[in-house]
Amino acid sequence: MFNLENNDEVANTDSFTLFAAFEKTKGTVDKVLLNAPFIIKNYTQHLAKSSGKFIRAWALLICAMDNEDKISQNAVTLASAIEILHLATLVHDDVMDDASLRRGVITLQKKYGKKTAVICGDYLLAAALKLASSIENKDELFKFNMPSYVEQICMGELRQHINNGNVDISFYRYLSIISGKTAALFEAAFYGGALQVEKDKEILSNYSKLGKYLGMIFQLMDDCIDFEIDESIAKKNVQSDYEQGVITLPLIYAFYKDKDLKNKAKNGLLDRNELNKFVHKTGGLDFTKMISKKYYNKFTKTMSLIDMSEEKKYHLELVLNKAFYGLKNNNLKVE
Amino acid sequence: MFNLENNDEVANTDSFTLFAAFEKTKGTVDKVLLNAPFIIKNYTQHLAKSSGKFIRAWALLICAMDNEDKISQNAVTLASAIEILHLATLVHDDVMDDASLRRGVITLQKKYGKKTAVICGDYLLAAALKLASSIENKDELFKFNMPSYVEQICMGELRQHINNGNVDISFYRYLSIISGKTAALFEAAFYGGALQVEKDKEILSNYSKLGKYLGMIFQLMDDCIDFEIDESIAKKNVQSDYEQGVITLPLIYAFYKDKDLKNKAKNGLLDRNELNKFVHKTGGLDFTKMISKKYYNKFTKTMSLIDMSEEKKYHLELVLNKAFYGLKNNNLKVE
Repeated sequence: MFNLENNDEVANTDSFTLFAAFEKTKGTVDKVLLNAPFIIKNYTQHLAKSSGKFIRAWALLICAMDNEDKISQNAVTLASAIEILHLATLVHDDVMDDASLRRGVITLQKKYGKKTAVICGDYLLAAALKLASSIENKDELFKFNMPSYVEQICMGELRQHINNGNVDISFYRYLSIISGKTAALFEAAFYGGALQVEKDKEILSNYSKLGKYLGMIFQLMDDCIDFEIDESIAKKNVQSDYEQGVITLPLIYAFYKDKDLKNKAKNGLLDRNELNKFVHKTGGLDFTKMISKKYYNKFTKTMSLIDMSEEKKYHLELVLNKAFYGLKNNNLKVE
Repeated sequence: MFNLENNDEVANTDSFTLFAAFEKTKGTVDKVLLNAPFIIKNYTQHLAKSSGKFIRAWALLICAMDNEDKISQNAVTLASAIEILHLATLVHDDVMDDASLRRGVITLQKKYGKKTAVICGDYLLAAALKLASSIENKDELFKFNMPSYVEQICMGELRQHINNGNVDISFYRYLSIISGKTAALFEAAFYGGALQVEKDKEILSNYSKLGKYLGMIFQLMDDCIDFEIDESIAKKNVQSDYEQGVITLPLIYAFYKDKDLKNKAKNGLLDRNELNKFVHKTGGLDFTKMISKKYYNKFTKTMSLIDMSEEKKYHLELVLNKAFYGLKNNNLKVE
């Protein structure tokens, strides 16, 4: 006889619509943060307050849609793991940047100190990998290889740190930095999602590419925002990338166009207002958006190679446009 | 026909003696540190200089000895992963403690800065988990569940940090801290090793206990060393635990015996020499060694419940005595 009270077992064979899967994902992340062991709960609960748009989880779930546009429990688990991993990287980022605010909420490192934040980041990293390893299909998990994405993220972060304040950083080096720092996790999300429904290596590789392109678009548009809007809207750190010594693409282009500007920056003679003006005037923003548009086009071209349902296509295009048009187009918000 | 040139595949069916497996483990760890990707190699190479005694790897390999006292490639891989994980925790520890020296070598955080050290610790954590997940028997890997040990270590570290400078910390709370901070990784080593040769849950659980007991002995004896020898011999950080605000068992006992001493410590009136004298005089060292001896006895009792070869028994007892008698008995050195 079936034991109908054993909900756990029944649940594992269930599949969900995109919105139901997304709600389940948010619920799983909350559970990890809010029901953590006593000693760590105080800190992880604090993080739950500043949770973001879950754009990586959302992308993973779309990629995991099957022929009937349904999504498995495994995909929900991986999507939750990706968001917790993302959170872990943010906690350590804030330690390294000495950041006070994240999405309008005081950071863990500011409120509880750097030691606590280093440990909590480690804990979340382990929690993400533990959650991922709880999926049923272990073969998928090994193909997924989550730690290798963490390695890529670390290498991107390290490259960025090494190039801190380097006004001579090249266009290509910059792209390689953000390919690790930001795009690797999007790649993980797309690949991890697609693994739930695809076996063909070429198709899987195309999904990985989509993730990579989306990550690049996401980061490049974020770089532009830094020179376009004030911090109260961005809800980011009170310091801009430039003030942190992070030279992003709009500025790399501006420096390339205006050597005087570069020399001024080298000597620390530029304030934020001047910088914004120059980046705009030299075409740094237009250039960055043009590069981002190239990734946009690559995305749509690669997507056309993959056979998928109209609904899946619709949602992937929406995510793409959300990343490209960002905050300017609020009706495309993922949340 | 067999392709005899395919050494990789042939190697995976090999098994090794304890000493050969240990050499292979050191080789694997070196490979991860010395042949890391270009961007990270500079830093990981630096860490290779200060590698320790590999006592956790050694313990794992002993536990992985089969009926013929041979050790599999999987065990070598897990032993290497455990040491890299241990290294990751040390790198983050040094960031948090602002430590300058580790085993006589300048720390990563001192030489290259805290940002680099936070990222490198994350990288090593991921590299350890990636290496572990490369073992062939995936079922074993899931039973092993390495991330859950990382969580335990983080919780131990967090408890220690929260109790920093707490002269009122209880005996039991202290034991719970070191059970996570130090003993969890020994438990992982013993369990991971035994998994290679045992299927029986009760036997596996006994191996876990052995690891836990050994970790407790190891930490308690290390706590004593802090009050017994000068820093040039310990090759540890230039600051003692006490100067870092870490109240260890010998001191907890001394405070319990001498309330005046506790009040002086509260008001920051104690220097290191006075402290050493008081800890000795009040019996703090004897008490700690007595507790450590209790774990020693638990170890030998639990070991007697496990059916194992004479050689395996011999090596486990040697590790136990090395942990208990430590630096005082150099002919028992693992290296």
